[in-house]
Amino acid sequence: MQYKKGQKERFTKTITESDVSLFAGITGDFNPAHINAEWAKESIFGERIVHGILVTGLISAVIGMKLPGPGAVYMEQDTKFLRPVKLQDTVTAEVELEEILNEEKRILRLATRGYNQKGELVLEGYAVVKAP
Amino acid sequence: MQYKKGQKERFTKTITESDVSLFAGITGDFNPAHINAEWAKESIFGERIVHGILVTGLISAVIGMKLPGPGAVYMEQDTKFLRPVKLQDTVTAEVELEEILNEEKRILRLATRGYNQKGELVLEGYAVVKAP
Amino acid sequence: MQYKKGQKERFTKTITESDVSLFAGITGDFNPAHINAEWAKESIFGERIVHGILVTGLISAVIGMKLPGPGAVYMEQDTKFLRPVKLQDTVTAEVELEEILNEEKRILRLATRGYNQKGELVLEGYAVVKAP
Amino acid sequence: MQYKKGQKERFTKTITESDVSLFAGITGDFNPAHINAEWAKESIFGERIVHGILVTGLISAVIGMKLPGPGAVYMEQDTKFLRPVKLQDTVTAEVELEEILNEEKRILRLATRGYNQKGELVLEGYAVVKAP
Repeated sequence: MQYKKGQKERFTKTITESDVSLFAGITGDFNPAHINAEWAKESIFGERIVHGILVTGLISAVIGMKLPGPGAVYMEQDTKFLRPVKLQDTVTAEVELEEILNEEKRILRLATRGYNQKGELVLEGYAVVKAP
Repeated sequence: MQYKKGQKERFTKTITESDVSLFAGITGDFNPAHINAEWAKESIFGERIVHGILVTGLISAVIGMKLPGPGAVYMEQDTKFLRPVKLQDTVTAEVELEEILNEEKRILRLATRGYNQKGELVLEGYAVVKAP
Repeated sequence: MQYKKGQKERFTKTITESDVSLFAGITGDFNPAHINAEWAKESIFGERIVHGILVTGLISAVIGMKLPGPGAVYMEQDTKFLRPVKLQDTVTAEVELEEILNEEKRILRLATRGYNQKGELVLEGYAVVKAP
Repeated sequence: MQYKKGQKERFTKTITESDVSLFAGITGDFNPAHINAEWAKESIFGERIVHGILVTGLISAVIGMKLPGPGAVYMEQDTKFLRPVKLQDTVTAEVELEEILNEEKRILRLATRGYNQKGELVLEGYAVVKAP
């Protein structure tokens, strides 16, 4: 595969309550912001929000499935969480090739972004990956 | 709660095949490195490995449950993936308070690390969080 | 750890539809009261209710995580189910040290209670556990 | 349905690692005895064990599916945990009608037992249920 600066791939998924319940179980993260609806009503967001790392998982999906795709090895992920993602939000993860850091070793730097269904940026960062 | 530089919290969990299957389902990351045992045999790791972002979720668990704990709001997570985590590895996530970035707004910078059962560092990075 | 009569610990979680579906799958309890919404409409509760034993699992969480905590060994659990728990109810499990039955062997008797988001008692009983 | 003292029903299921992972996620019970293989090696059981309440769920399955069956309402469950259940053990839950406590209101007292694949009793107790 040939890589070119600026190429982009995306993946879109609705984040369900089941996703949040399962993610809590996989990771042990039972922060009440995610799993206690009564607590969340009184919080700054007014309702339960999705684990930020779960949303980052959609970036991982684009990297592992599309850019650079199957066999990609994750070397680094930096993510800034800009807005809360709520249950039932539909998130589009976007990955853009920013720079080929090492052509021989096939190391890429990717810009990584997540948008909600209103087009608002919910997370932003970058990844470093070794392409297959 | 009073925060002090250098304070640490940990959480340890074995990563099961079920965790990896569910994480693939939640995120859509079906990279064959994680979900195709035959493909993985021929890969550089020789077997299936755990999604890096799943392992980062254990960092999220320490942040959301212990330091700074329930009600913590994630602002940033940077993670370098140093070694592969295999199915059935037991990972200890460690979070250490590195700096109080803003006392009034309760913004903390945390060093974040993950170790496998042999004590090898599998991931390393930092988080910025707003304490409750 | 020192134990004192009257000490209490709690854990609160919203019970989701996903939790009920998974619990049915783990245990094989497909009582229509839990998994058949049409049947449940005609039942005395008027809607699907959560498996009582699932709710008891939140008591287990307090015992295994907080009182007496990691490494606790369950010897007995008695639970009276007083009120139905509905999907999306937020349950607080409460464990209170009632009596140290055997100091040397670290056997404790705990009062165990569950409350819904209205503060109504949904289950009540006791546990006998061996502390770590 | 006519009820007779001594009538029995059973349900048998292998408890998988996935069941244990999911049960931890549903309940929040991340006691290391269940989810940390390294910790468990050093424990009195020498390996991870299944949550006792998960095993009790198989009793619930017999009650909700067979005796007294669909529509049964759980009023009480008492369980003594006699032996650890390990991952991959195959447990048979057995329910026996011990007494009709109230014929008009259809309240039954049931003896409840669980056996492993070697025929050893792993749990024992009783349930009170309202038959449909």
